[in-house]
Amino acid sequence: MPIHLSTAEPDFQQRFAAMLSMKREDSADVNDVVTSIIADVRERGDEALVDLSGRFDRVALTPQTLAFDKDEIAAQIALVSDEERAALTVAADRIRAYHARQLPEDMEWTDPEGATLGWRWTPVSAAGLYVPGGQASYPSSVLMNAIPARVAGVERLVICVPTPNGQVNPLVLLAAQLAGVDEIYRIGGAQAIAAMAYGTETIRPVDKITGPGNAYVAAAKRHVFGRVGIDMIAGPSEVLIIAEGAQNPEWLALDLLAQAEHDADAQSILITPDKALADAVVLEVERILPTLPRAKVAGASWRDYGTVILTRDLDEAATLSDRIAPEHLELCVDDPEALAAKTRHAGAIFLGGWTPEAVGDYVSGPNHVLPTARSARFSSGLSVMDFMKRTTMARLTPEALAKIGPDAVVLAASEGLSAHGLSVASRIRALNGGQG
Amino acid sequence: MPIHLSTAEPDFQQRFAAMLSMKREDSADVNDVVTSIIADVRERGDEALVDLSGRFDRVALTPQTLAFDKDEIAAQIALVSDEERAALTVAADRIRAYHARQLPEDMEWTDPEGATLGWRWTPVSAAGLYVPGGQASYPSSVLMNAIPARVAGVERLVICVPTPNGQVNPLVLLAAQLAGVDEIYRIGGAQAIAAMAYGTETIRPVDKITGPGNAYVAAAKRHVFGRVGIDMIAGPSEVLIIAEGAQNPEWLALDLLAQAEHDADAQSILITPDKALADAVVLEVERILPTLPRAKVAGASWRDYGTVILTRDLDEAATLSDRIAPEHLELCVDDPEALAAKTRHAGAIFLGGWTPEAVGDYVSGPNHVLPTARSARFSSGLSVMDFMKRTTMARLTPEALAKIGPDAVVLAASEGLSAHGLSVASRIRALNGGQG
Repeated sequence: MPIHLSTAEPDFQQRFAAMLSMKREDSADVNDVVTSIIADVRERGDEALVDLSGRFDRVALTPQTLAFDKDEIAAQIALVSDEERAALTVAADRIRAYHARQLPEDMEWTDPEGATLGWRWTPVSAAGLYVPGGQASYPSSVLMNAIPARVAGVERLVICVPTPNGQVNPLVLLAAQLAGVDEIYRIGGAQAIAAMAYGTETIRPVDKITGPGNAYVAAAKRHVFGRVGIDMIAGPSEVLIIAEGAQNPEWLALDLLAQAEHDADAQSILITPDKALADAVVLEVERILPTLPRAKVAGASWRDYGTVILTRDLDEAATLSDRIAPEHLELCVDDPEALAAKTRHAGAIFLGGWTPEAVGDYVSGPNHVLPTARSARFSSGLSVMDFMKRTTMARLTPEALAKIGPDAVVLAASEGLSAHGLSVASRIRALNGGQG
Repeated sequence: MPIHLSTAEPDFQQRFAAMLSMKREDSADVNDVVTSIIADVRERGDEALVDLSGRFDRVALTPQTLAFDKDEIAAQIALVSDEERAALTVAADRIRAYHARQLPEDMEWTDPEGATLGWRWTPVSAAGLYVPGGQASYPSSVLMNAIPARVAGVERLVICVPTPNGQVNPLVLLAAQLAGVDEIYRIGGAQAIAAMAYGTETIRPVDKITGPGNAYVAAAKRHVFGRVGIDMIAGPSEVLIIAEGAQNPEWLALDLLAQAEHDADAQSILITPDKALADAVVLEVERILPTLPRAKVAGASWRDYGTVILTRDLDEAATLSDRIAPEHLELCVDDPEALAAKTRHAGAIFLGGWTPEAVGDYVSGPNHVLPTARSARFSSGLSVMDFMKRTTMARLTPEALAKIGPDAVVLAASEGLSAHGLSVASRIRALNGGQG
């Protein structure tokens, strides 16, 4: 039974707040294990990677076989069907086209005082992408992480993907090839994050690490943050659908279930002013759910976190949506643009009934790595800019320094920083004919 | 004695690597204290803030006096001299003009398949700025944090600044007024961060927290990260000066000392191919150092971390600079633009001998909150975009879904996510005349 709320009920605010603060993630404290794994990799390098991969992934590696070699990659990729290869190529092309538009521009201008100011963007030199192994080894995720890095101009792009029991996903290797990845290592877990952050004999360190992973990977990313850059630590996924009008209940039910099948901790929310539509969608969910191969996962998610909220109108729905700040927001209404303009906090918006969220997971073009757990209030999905950084630039003429420098001298004195003041004042003195 | 290196020496690489990995920060582990302070504020709200401010800041507050009131702010601001007011106003205006150019643009386009794609930027709703009390209470820092937030369009802007022993800095209040801050609370430490992240009876929670602070503040920011957004946790400040040609040794010495006087953990580095210039600068540093009011701090920094590196030429200097990835990079050479083009990793670049770093701390316009400790390899200084987030947008026509949807269905099947595939396929089936 999903959660049913209505803004017309007197206790709505309390129940909505309780839904919002529901803790969906049960993050085990793995910090001690992760700390010791990282120390081991820093101390013993490749040797630690070999030992840890034997223990956790049950694979016998050597320093020489940590990296996939070219022939092996080619042989694996040859196993991919033509249909899958074509689909992955379309996805890669569309993701590349979308992200190419994100490349930020440098700026430079000279102001009336004679200061030439601006900034320039440069890519991170080397980036490492973590790709989970086994079941959660998603080729789409490789594209979504690697392509923005390549578009940004990252020179060296590394993937770490574990091969539990020797299991390799050919589609992951094909996705890496389509995205232009340079090096692929068959290691996983906290040891892979440590290797990318600190380097080993075989694996040179990178500057930025992105990509999803389990609790160990997440803890390791937190641990190495500062030494390298990391992306957001993603929580369980969520979708919010706002619906009204002539919508197909089966489609909406499938969209809710597509979210639910990701993970038992995922959350699917429907908000609508139309009680008949809400009831029809819930019936469809119940009809379809048992037929899904991942019925157990999707059923647990729907039962524990699925939520249906009845509102007075769409304005009220938009207000609630902003409080939820959903990762994915589907607007299945007659005028989705008008409704989108009334919302403010969401990772990605899917406008209209012909834009199911699932198409965005693969081929529409925007990134599917998005802020979860209400963090769309203050953060954005993965983009080209996550693999670049901005350097601010300033050049003053002597005249410009003479004009604005004295104010810096006054403020430095206020803050008690005398060498700051002198470094400006000594130059101005030289300009005014004093000794330099 | 600063560290002297030369790329001509056989052990240069080892000594340079040792200099790079020098640990300048001695971060005490304050996590347990911070965790209990945060729990206290979450549980007891205003009452905890009153108690903790009494204990740590030795001030007797009540829930009613947590916020500065209008009359008090006006009375304090009236104490500021005209000269300081004018200088702070110039700084605010110049910082605002620079940051106004950072406002990112929304994008929307329709691709050949009929997918309308793009993104839009929206501001964070509420931001909180931490301002240290006492000695480190810098009005310039208020401007550098608050103005980008206001330019971004943040609706509610809050400052927390402790008043140890009741000490108030009128310039901080004036800077807050010039920047357009809405609420100012006289609380500090981990309790201020907890109040802004979780809210109390008096202080509504914010979505993003920025600003410098001591070890307790830094630990508290790490702790609340995820609940709210935070800026980078800054390490000790650093400057790298690359110099050659007819440079004034006194100016360079003052620029090195301006960095050193910030903090005993700060680092000042000079790289030059010109041994005579290096020697002259070191002599100037030694001459000026004892005359500074902050000689003790600056002397400790110069003695422990000051570094002079002789190189073969400027190209080699640029290569070393990229390995250091300095927070501040001063290019005191004849053609600073050419040298800037050869570097890649720096928080801010100051071009030419007339652009001392100190002018950038106050009035040149770019932000002075910059990446430290080599993090300019992967991160940027504070900007308007830190107070905004990007929502990706997609709208497909039925025809567009018919064209690209089948590839999503193939990839969903590869990843074993059947509801994903069905959510797309059921729509395509309807288009093709099947049942919706």
